Amino acid sequence: MPRVFLTVPLHVGESVVIGGEEGHHFARVLRIRVSEEVALVTSGQAYLGTITEVDNKNGEVVASVVSTLPSTESRHNVYLVQGLAKGDKIDTIIQKCTEVGVRGVLVVETNRSIVKLPHDKRPSKVARWQKICQEAASQSQRDVVPEISFAKNEPEVQQWLESLGDTQIYFADEDESALGLKDAIKVSRSQSSPTATSVIVVGPEGGWDDAERTWWKSTVGASIVTLGRRILRTETAGIVAISAVLYEYGELGGGDEP
Amino acid sequence: MPRVFLTVPLHVGESVVIGGEEGHHFARVLRIRVSEEVALVTSGQAYLGTITEVDNKNGEVVASVVSTLPSTESRHNVYLVQGLAKGDKIDTIIQKCTEVGVRGVLVVETNRSIVKLPHDKRPSKVARWQKICQEAASQSQRDVVPEISFAKNEPEVQQWLESLGDTQIYFADEDESALGLKDAIKVSRSQSSPTATSVIVVGPEGGWDDAERTWWKSTVGASIVTLGRRILRTETAGIVAISAVLYEYGELGGGDEP
Repeated sequence: MPRVFLTVPLHVGESVVIGGEEGHHFARVLRIRVSEEVALVTSGQAYLGTITEVDNKNGEVVASVVSTLPSTESRHNVYLVQGLAKGDKIDTIIQKCTEVGVRGVLVVETNRSIVKLPHDKRPSKVARWQKICQEAASQSQRDVVPEISFAKNEPEVQQWLESLGDTQIYFADEDESALGLKDAIKVSRSQSSPTATSVIVVGPEGGWDDAERTWWKSTVGASIVTLGRRILRTETAGIVAISAVLYEYGELGGGDEP
Repeated sequence: MPRVFLTVPLHVGESVVIGGEEGHHFARVLRIRVSEEVALVTSGQAYLGTITEVDNKNGEVVASVVSTLPSTESRHNVYLVQGLAKGDKIDTIIQKCTEVGVRGVLVVETNRSIVKLPHDKRPSKVARWQKICQEAASQSQRDVVPEISFAKNEPEVQQWLESLGDTQIYFADEDESALGLKDAIKVSRSQSSPTATSVIVVGPEGGWDDAERTWWKSTVGASIVTLGRRILRTETAGIVAISAVLYEYGELGGGDEP
């Protein structure tokens, strides 16, 4: 079922006119027809809709809002902090982590990031990542489009972390061998509030330097963890760790799901 | 540390001559120098080696075998059966699943596979996948290069499954909503021998048809499971499910690791 994110409020029993990019997509790209079913999502809630009118010429459709759809979102929030990596790796990371269920991604320029993102390129790059994220959210039937942000330095990272409220931060470090992610999650679950948000932190290709490691550990209280004895690429570590956290919380085909 | 897979036996205290493709890689691509450290892997055991001679002209190096290295392999074996998918998706799946720790991959031509693999293209395609796998195994510091196989029909799949011995098969199905992967693994762990191998089964883009679903369930005894309420792409489902299984068994940065 095609899924579209809207910014207008939706009410069961009423109709909604879908124009703009979404209307164009339905009418002219998908060539949707009257009576086809669609999923309409607004403010974290998805609705079943039925197409009642199609205006191919103007790229506009009208849908009747039939009923609410059950939530596909994880009740446990997991965020990713990802060191800026080369090429289109960030695109892939955002796409895959959105599918699995990440709630938001902060891309960070680190000391060992091989590429840098000049100030004037930041808005267009973040907009591009946000678009990839929205497409992945639609494809994977999410009710929420995760927010993609960018931080150039530690104060910006700290501000972003504080905006999340109560967090448990897991800093993946290939030089760590003592504390495994699984142990760290178990300790966190026993100590923190059940509503605490998990944050996974993954470095760029070259990893973290000592100053960064110390900052994450001492200033923001991250647990420095290993993801096991096999070395994961920067574009693999995030999706693996997010899968593990969501699995642990019963949000990846687990018995705790509604 | 560069890592190379060799087919000759290695003994601590002895020297080994590395020629062929590996010697070329060390001498001419990496331009390795005398006294540099390398990891030499044979028959599932890794050794620390020190380069003692480099012949750049002939692409040959000599290494002295210094000591054994601790295993990086999971003690729980997980295999992937992957429905043949379009484009270079299988390449990515093999690369990523090898990093995470898959023990072997069977690519299967299914009823809804959009691409087909003609008989005469099979050997070259499997050889190409095996090469991608070997590079990923080296990069992620594996002690074993997973074996990539191909099956065109159900008897070939069955033969491959039988070669694995005692298995627990998890068939990922987006139409399933009752039994989650986590529940299925917990049931399996309580019922099966601790040495049973896990097999994750992922369909192509178009999913499975009813006949295939029935075959997996009734003929080979697979558990039909959901990976949760978000829809994962075919190239995402395998790595997510393998991460979950290895996490469950304490093989992804878990306390059970040696």
